[in-house]
Amino acid sequence: MPLEFRFRHPVPVRFKDIDIGGHAHHSHALVYFEEARWAYWREVVGRGRPEQVDYILADVRVRYHQRVLYPQTLDVGVRVSGVGRKTFDMVYEVLGEDGTRLVSGASVQVAYDYEAARSVRVSDELRRVLEAFDGPFA
Amino acid sequence: MPLEFRFRHPVPVRFKDIDIGGHAHHSHALVYFEEARWAYWREVVGRGRPEQVDYILADVRVRYHQRVLYPQTLDVGVRVSGVGRKTFDMVYEVLGEDGTRLVSGASVQVAYDYEAARSVRVSDELRRVLEAFDGPFA
Amino acid sequence: MPLEFRFRHPVPVRFKDIDIGGHAHHSHALVYFEEARWAYWREVVGRGRPEQVDYILADVRVRYHQRVLYPQTLDVGVRVSGVGRKTFDMVYEVLGEDGTRLVSGASVQVAYDYEAARSVRVSDELRRVLEAFDGPFA
Amino acid sequence: MPLEFRFRHPVPVRFKDIDIGGHAHHSHALVYFEEARWAYWREVVGRGRPEQVDYILADVRVRYHQRVLYPQTLDVGVRVSGVGRKTFDMVYEVLGEDGTRLVSGASVQVAYDYEAARSVRVSDELRRVLEAFDGPFA
Repeated sequence: MPLEFRFRHPVPVRFKDIDIGGHAHHSHALVYFEEARWAYWREVVGRGRPEQVDYILADVRVRYHQRVLYPQTLDVGVRVSGVGRKTFDMVYEVLGEDGTRLVSGASVQVAYDYEAARSVRVSDELRRVLEAFDGPFA
Repeated sequence: MPLEFRFRHPVPVRFKDIDIGGHAHHSHALVYFEEARWAYWREVVGRGRPEQVDYILADVRVRYHQRVLYPQTLDVGVRVSGVGRKTFDMVYEVLGEDGTRLVSGASVQVAYDYEAARSVRVSDELRRVLEAFDGPFA
Repeated sequence: MPLEFRFRHPVPVRFKDIDIGGHAHHSHALVYFEEARWAYWREVVGRGRPEQVDYILADVRVRYHQRVLYPQTLDVGVRVSGVGRKTFDMVYEVLGEDGTRLVSGASVQVAYDYEAARSVRVSDELRRVLEAFDGPFA
Repeated sequence: MPLEFRFRHPVPVRFKDIDIGGHAHHSHALVYFEEARWAYWREVVGRGRPEQVDYILADVRVRYHQRVLYPQTLDVGVRVSGVGRKTFDMVYEVLGEDGTRLVSGASVQVAYDYEAARSVRVSDELRRVLEAFDGPFA
């Protein structure tokens, strides 16, 4: 898991996220990651609307370190950690208001043409933007 | 609230529906209604796929009678209670596995052309189908 | 529906709220209301933690005026509109970032003792706080 | 990923699971896994009520193979693949109605005493039940 995130995004926990255990249901980790990923896509890549998404998720991994409690605003870090021919990797970290690391994770995205319904190469333009912001990649 | 429903649909409660109070979060009432409404649309009206929806919700009302607990399969009744020029009304009832009425409600739908992004008249075909199944309407 | 709200609370829409129609699923109206209601309870009433809740929902009503789109931060108004012996009423309004009214609604709460599992009288203390902030009530 | 599951559980997709892409939002994979895991806990282990849960999730992994569409009832396989001193591993497979593998995954659970708020050893009783049903473990 990486230690530094140039891009961070605040995500308020909602009461509805909380399950019978008194903490956010574990599936919400993916929602917190996602809000930060969308914000990255809007602010770094410049594609902000839901219909502009140009990738699909292929693989996610989540590690739960501490309980996510309500109410608080999470501080979610997201970073592109690698770009392949048709895929790119992202890593995440969710901090609580006191700075404790609550959740971390990683995802693999596949560049995707929704109209053609098939995977495509990561465009040179996208690769340049990601590399400029979070690169160089190994 | 009506007492009889010709159409009923089973909806299993999910663990994730349950909130810190140990019962389904109140917003799930609308999801239970919706599953029954979709089933009605598939089985009675004959339009079953999400992209075939031809109305929007304008108004909903929910009454909470008893807690919705997990695990169980709910028995959700849904009925069209009236058809107007551009709208139609539906009523709902959610029973628990022991037959107790847990939630009831009502909704108003507006016939809608998603491509044109505007409300439209309820088609004669739809009116006939609804009237034949749940009519006559007042 | 009332026109003025002394208490307002910001609620960011999440991507996951959006359904196949490209707008927030209608059940999220209740979640937006709820976030504002919890904030009211924390900031006005002074009870902020999920385990401090002392009421249950008996009845909700939602009116959908315009689609709720992503991304944006909603401005949710909430107000106590009346206090009875065992119940109190609240009304809500959800505005979009451009000030358009997207959703409005109302709810009835019953004062509840979770340990005893039964409804109770609205305490004089709570009545005074609500009346001082949002009263006088009719 | 294992190929055989002695325990399988049906999970109907809900309309609300579907996101703007027309398929279930990726976080629902964890909900489908969970419904099968709860059913396993009820039917194999004999602990069926939410307040009887005696573990926490430490780590999950999800692989997305095909889109999860609505409406359909998923066939979710779940298996305990290993038991450690304080943890146990589970693997999952989500099949569509036509038998296509849509999602697969794995999770690591930590045996947990909620009252004491700390991890505990997997009880001998639980180990025996899991081993008898899904063992022998490597």
